[in-house]
Amino acid sequence: MSIKTVSTAKSHGGVQSVHSHASEACGCDMTFAVFVPPQAEEGPCPVLWYLSGLTCTHANVVEKGEYRRMAAELGLIVVCPDTSPRGAHVPDEKDNWQFGSGAGFYVDASEAPYDTNYRMYSYVVEELPRIVSANFPADMNRQSIFGHSMGGHGALTIALRNPKRFRSCSAFAPIVHPSDADWSARAFERYLGPNQADWRTHDACSLIEDGYRFSEFLVDQGKADSFLEDGLKPWLLEEACRKAGIPLKLRMQPGYDHSYFFISTFMDDHLRWHAQRLGMLEGDVT
Amino acid sequence: MSIKTVSTAKSHGGVQSVHSHASEACGCDMTFAVFVPPQAEEGPCPVLWYLSGLTCTHANVVEKGEYRRMAAELGLIVVCPDTSPRGAHVPDEKDNWQFGSGAGFYVDASEAPYDTNYRMYSYVVEELPRIVSANFPADMNRQSIFGHSMGGHGALTIALRNPKRFRSCSAFAPIVHPSDADWSARAFERYLGPNQADWRTHDACSLIEDGYRFSEFLVDQGKADSFLEDGLKPWLLEEACRKAGIPLKLRMQPGYDHSYFFISTFMDDHLRWHAQRLGMLEGDVT
Repeated sequence: MSIKTVSTAKSHGGVQSVHSHASEACGCDMTFAVFVPPQAEEGPCPVLWYLSGLTCTHANVVEKGEYRRMAAELGLIVVCPDTSPRGAHVPDEKDNWQFGSGAGFYVDASEAPYDTNYRMYSYVVEELPRIVSANFPADMNRQSIFGHSMGGHGALTIALRNPKRFRSCSAFAPIVHPSDADWSARAFERYLGPNQADWRTHDACSLIEDGYRFSEFLVDQGKADSFLEDGLKPWLLEEACRKAGIPLKLRMQPGYDHSYFFISTFMDDHLRWHAQRLGMLEGDVT
Repeated sequence: MSIKTVSTAKSHGGVQSVHSHASEACGCDMTFAVFVPPQAEEGPCPVLWYLSGLTCTHANVVEKGEYRRMAAELGLIVVCPDTSPRGAHVPDEKDNWQFGSGAGFYVDASEAPYDTNYRMYSYVVEELPRIVSANFPADMNRQSIFGHSMGGHGALTIALRNPKRFRSCSAFAPIVHPSDADWSARAFERYLGPNQADWRTHDACSLIEDGYRFSEFLVDQGKADSFLEDGLKPWLLEEACRKAGIPLKLRMQPGYDHSYFFISTFMDDHLRWHAQRLGMLEGDVT
């Protein structure tokens, strides 16, 4: 479980670093980013997982997410995994941004040839937490998770399946019902097989229908997001949460698109939402 | 003077946009970014110019500078020009990051073949302000300027030569004496000719020696910056300012490098420094 440091830089009083390691889950080298706040010099800090969207690596949120100032103020470790296995031997389709590299969808693929490498669920839920715990001053008893778009889907599904591990979950413009969206349904079919019953444990709305529960969700969604009507459909999550009695704070944000200009705008709100639920912040947040 | 909008996105309540236009000064199409804060809906806002460093375009600071949150809070328009002329007909050296594309050094070249296009001083000081004034809700009576590295050099020299236009000037890790630094001296020779007397109006330390004055400067410099000893040498500015009686707040920041991880950390401080001197903020700042 040795890791190699790719880069490290002081930022906002803490340290932003990038690391690579040989992944057992994914059968390839994987890269991830970690921000360690200055409070880590005093003792272990809670861990907030950020899962990125289609086409992204760890780098997009590191460069554009604007999370370090507030994470340093609050004392949060922020871990940003990659979005898929990568490498010359990893099956992929170079011209398809909705499948393969950059499009792991946080599932464990069951179908050949993808089942060897496309195991992002196991990677994010099992392998990477062990690596983070072993190599960083992380309080693994206090974890939360959030993400964007495909990563919002990842955060919602992983939280629903692991409600005792995560104190809170939020998302920016998440794919809430990937089984029924064009861009994800075709990937699900190839990763998970044609039987849609097998997709339900990787679909937030289906998980809720099937009885999975989480304490509450915060979701921000830009109203000028070009993917809103066809792919994201947050009203499906709203309906599922309403029926299941899960509190959902869905904030439709006028004028905002799907980009990191949107994400960075509401980043502080999400960090404070998680910090409060991790017991780091008093009072009413968002 | 018509401009073409390349992209636009809502961010932090304001609008981040990128534009291109045919530049008379540079004899090519030029691109620049503008952030307009929400206060612009009420009336014209002060303008803060950010000049970028070697190898950069407008995009680096737009993506990594983390200036929008505070600019939106304060009500500042932030304009980010490109760092050189660009285009198939613009003379350049593809493999040289210290000359040509991305390395305009904010001078007006006197030497052929560079004198046709490499006129970044005139572009930033004369042409682009006219374009900004004509196309954005800008209060051109309230302007300030800052920049990074080569752009810090640009900010210092432009402020010294135009002290009545700019209310304040600051820099991140500026090149303070480009005539005497390897990476810039060779570029100066090719842009400005072999006579070093002709370089002095494009060199902050030389300008101060020659009697140019500015009210005060704020400079942040990372102590772990790999360019510190050979290229940046902020102590030369300190000495020049001391002799000239120009107040300089030089903050040597332990552990910080030359990157946007450093810049973004101290961005808020610089925005507040400028806002106070633009009459937008009461009390003591930094």
